[in-house]
Amino acid sequence: MKTFRTPLKAVAIASRLPGRSILPNELILTNVAELQEANAQSVCFFENPKYLDDLKQTEAGLLLVPADFDISVKPQTNLILVEKPYVMFMMLVKTWLELDRPPQQKRIAASAVIAVSAVIGANVVIGENCVIGAKTIIGDGTRIDSNTVLAENVQVGRNCHLFPNITIYEDCLIKNKVIIHAGCVIGADGFGYLMHEGIQNKIPQVGNVIIEDDVEIGANSAIDRATIGSTIIGKGTKIDNLVQVGHNCIIGENSILCAQVGLAGSTVIGNVVYLAGQVGVAGHLKIDDGAMVGAQSGVSHTIPKGEKVFGTPAINVGLRRRILASEKKLPEIVRHYNKLLKKEKEI
Amino acid sequence: MKTFRTPLKAVAIASRLPGRSILPNELILTNVAELQEANAQSVCFFENPKYLDDLKQTEAGLLLVPADFDISVKPQTNLILVEKPYVMFMMLVKTWLELDRPPQQKRIAASAVIAVSAVIGANVVIGENCVIGAKTIIGDGTRIDSNTVLAENVQVGRNCHLFPNITIYEDCLIKNKVIIHAGCVIGADGFGYLMHEGIQNKIPQVGNVIIEDDVEIGANSAIDRATIGSTIIGKGTKIDNLVQVGHNCIIGENSILCAQVGLAGSTVIGNVVYLAGQVGVAGHLKIDDGAMVGAQSGVSHTIPKGEKVFGTPAINVGLRRRILASEKKLPEIVRHYNKLLKKEKEI
Amino acid sequence: MKTFRTPLKAVAIASRLPGRSILPNELILTNVAELQEANAQSVCFFENPKYLDDLKQTEAGLLLVPADFDISVKPQTNLILVEKPYVMFMMLVKTWLELDRPPQQKRIAASAVIAVSAVIGANVVIGENCVIGAKTIIGDGTRIDSNTVLAENVQVGRNCHLFPNITIYEDCLIKNKVIIHAGCVIGADGFGYLMHEGIQNKIPQVGNVIIEDDVEIGANSAIDRATIGSTIIGKGTKIDNLVQVGHNCIIGENSILCAQVGLAGSTVIGNVVYLAGQVGVAGHLKIDDGAMVGAQSGVSHTIPKGEKVFGTPAINVGLRRRILASEKKLPEIVRHYNKLLKKEKEI
Repeated sequence: MKTFRTPLKAVAIASRLPGRSILPNELILTNVAELQEANAQSVCFFENPKYLDDLKQTEAGLLLVPADFDISVKPQTNLILVEKPYVMFMMLVKTWLELDRPPQQKRIAASAVIAVSAVIGANVVIGENCVIGAKTIIGDGTRIDSNTVLAENVQVGRNCHLFPNITIYEDCLIKNKVIIHAGCVIGADGFGYLMHEGIQNKIPQVGNVIIEDDVEIGANSAIDRATIGSTIIGKGTKIDNLVQVGHNCIIGENSILCAQVGLAGSTVIGNVVYLAGQVGVAGHLKIDDGAMVGAQSGVSHTIPKGEKVFGTPAINVGLRRRILASEKKLPEIVRHYNKLLKKEKEI
Repeated sequence: MKTFRTPLKAVAIASRLPGRSILPNELILTNVAELQEANAQSVCFFENPKYLDDLKQTEAGLLLVPADFDISVKPQTNLILVEKPYVMFMMLVKTWLELDRPPQQKRIAASAVIAVSAVIGANVVIGENCVIGAKTIIGDGTRIDSNTVLAENVQVGRNCHLFPNITIYEDCLIKNKVIIHAGCVIGADGFGYLMHEGIQNKIPQVGNVIIEDDVEIGANSAIDRATIGSTIIGKGTKIDNLVQVGHNCIIGENSILCAQVGLAGSTVIGNVVYLAGQVGVAGHLKIDDGAMVGAQSGVSHTIPKGEKVFGTPAINVGLRRRILASEKKLPEIVRHYNKLLKKEKEI
Repeated sequence: MKTFRTPLKAVAIASRLPGRSILPNELILTNVAELQEANAQSVCFFENPKYLDDLKQTEAGLLLVPADFDISVKPQTNLILVEKPYVMFMMLVKTWLELDRPPQQKRIAASAVIAVSAVIGANVVIGENCVIGAKTIIGDGTRIDSNTVLAENVQVGRNCHLFPNITIYEDCLIKNKVIIHAGCVIGADGFGYLMHEGIQNKIPQVGNVIIEDDVEIGANSAIDRATIGSTIIGKGTKIDNLVQVGHNCIIGENSILCAQVGLAGSTVIGNVVYLAGQVGVAGHLKIDDGAMVGAQSGVSHTIPKGEKVFGTPAINVGLRRRILASEKKLPEIVRHYNKLLKKEKEI
């Protein structure tokens, strides 16, 4: 349950949503909730018939339901009938969060340590114990939460939100409206060594990371700086928690990298690519636009546009499924084959 | 080797343990150690015959050995003969640590930044540079180490230990006797987007995380907040390092999630479930009570009570092992099959 | 592109490198760059013929090229012809970074909180908001970046670099010239519980972690302390991001652990072992010197010296490749087999 600071009348909510509303009770709503935990001040949605019992029992004050909903199921309840209840509900939550949020005003914590040569934009919020390095630039409207460290010569654009305990190494460039969750490390050294006479010699890593507009990066993920040049995360791409992006990777726009994905160095990911959880991708290859890679797959070769692959090694998902279905028969086939061999020998 | 502040006489140790003691030397013990590194002040245990040579050579002052131990192997050595030496040894270590630890007294670091509206219980310790948000409540006897950040409206119960550099997002609820290791992120946004006209649109994440009593969470793990409702970690469940728990997951009691496990969203894990290292679990499914999932498995369907599964996809461990054993024969079978085909064609 | 503070003349660079130089233009160089982004002040290298077009178009002021390079390809350009352009280029970058770096002088941030009993060596740098526990010792020339926490009784050797937001638990020992990237957790409790009457009971973890000279550890990795004794990372071993090393593991010298590798407890890794990304290794086994484990492999048994293994379970890479090649034929073989069975039944 999320309780908002701004109470809203049922009619005010209805007026913000397309659809037919039935509002028998004059109510003030204060929260959004799941059906089971809802109270008379809650707004909920109902879409999946699986949750019909929860719907019948819910005490929610206002329900977003499908356009073809049988209103006799919840008589005397405030209803808004809409085409896509879940999507409409989420749009309402978004709007409500914005109503709740006062316009951001400049607030630099006294405990933050900001280099004299750093440039801080208008309406920037910098939390407690943040450390902002020399020549680092923070754009207007950006919010940096407590205990986050930006090294020297970092650029962060406008209207970004950096959560606590993040580290951004020197020379990295974060553009506008980027969200970075707690614990992320952006720009650590790429993993490169030259073995010489039995010793691993570090290859200096002097590139940087560029994160384009509207990217979101999940908690505790790590994006390594390029050896030379830049590791790039394209506009609108979303990265989940505990993801590893190796040095010199280039990721396109609006792609999805689910939790614990790992990309080795210099790999290129196209636009609107989908990498499911725990996928691993080898270095120096390409996953082209629109490709989808199933969970835990190991990608060891270039994947063409729009291809759906699965497994280790990642191959066409249809073929992989046929192999997996056949696998269960394998022990029996081996027994049969061994019998055959024995017979042949006896002959 | 762990050296304690409180020295203990051999007889004092013996009096704390069930079993027969043979104490030829009046000794004061100060540490616990492995057999090889032990000195005259060390307490050690011996249980696995594999380490008999280490036992013979050890200089340990006091040994916990099995009840049927042949005492002529270590003549003139202080011995305590017990049923389960390892378990008894660990109980001794636990007791010794408690003897060493003075009762916790209130200590709030001068550098900690605590909101005026936060409520801090009795005997709470808050380390350097901690940031405690508005309306956040810390229960009696809880210890929060340096540089940890609790956002607004977080509740932490009694006798918890939060290590350094942790981030807990707003509205999360941590109950009693919970241990959270360094670098964890609790309550970051769930990973949800709606693709609309080629753009990934963020679904607001307004739920929270609830962590029940006696949970322990390993270093750098991430537990995402629910979209609405709560992500829940049940009582007594233990989570290792670098684990990902997606939004709206519900985990039961006394389950074990080993390192680098990843759960996608809305998955339900029962009680006393065992997920070995690097297991991945797809979203919206259930792993029922007592189920065990082998390392690196990919769980793509519901697992019934007590079932043991392995592999990707995770299937019955017996069947999986038969498949894996058969696999090695596969290249030979394919060669045989190809010959057969060729012969058929020739005919 | 990396711009240095120290400009270098082309002749000065040439004098530092073995090889033949052709320097038609008197130039001052200020940066290293990739071929495409280079300007007249850039030094670049060319080695892989794949990038010949980039070479032709580059505006780089100075190029390191192979000894047998056809100089007519870049007339009127400053060239240094060397045996291994990439290696020479990287040596130049290393030297240039060192020229740029003023000798480190003691600098303890006013906001750092250092226990009275801590011992800080000569020329140590301690960043903002660092917390250094009681009896902790920091060796000469070591640099600790902002917001890093060292608990009590930690030892860090000489000339180490600890990046921001690191946590090192009590009693751990870091030797000389060690690099630890941001967000790492060294010495968190090993993951050990004894199930008793349905409850998971924590096994106290009173060992430590020892990190030998010249080790580098990537961002957000976690190295657990031993239960008793020590978890050890051997000299010169390099560990990538998001790696998990379980309690009581012992890793040899100059080994490579790529990103997201996970080692369960008490496993022994030899010298010059290579573990590719996302490899998982079960507990209590050994991977001997020089062994190589392919990406995502699951190691469930001891691997002998020099062996190359791949897959889950990890077996000889040649056999694994033959199995993977055969796999694609499996659905057809199963169909064939089923037909055969049907025929037999009909007979």
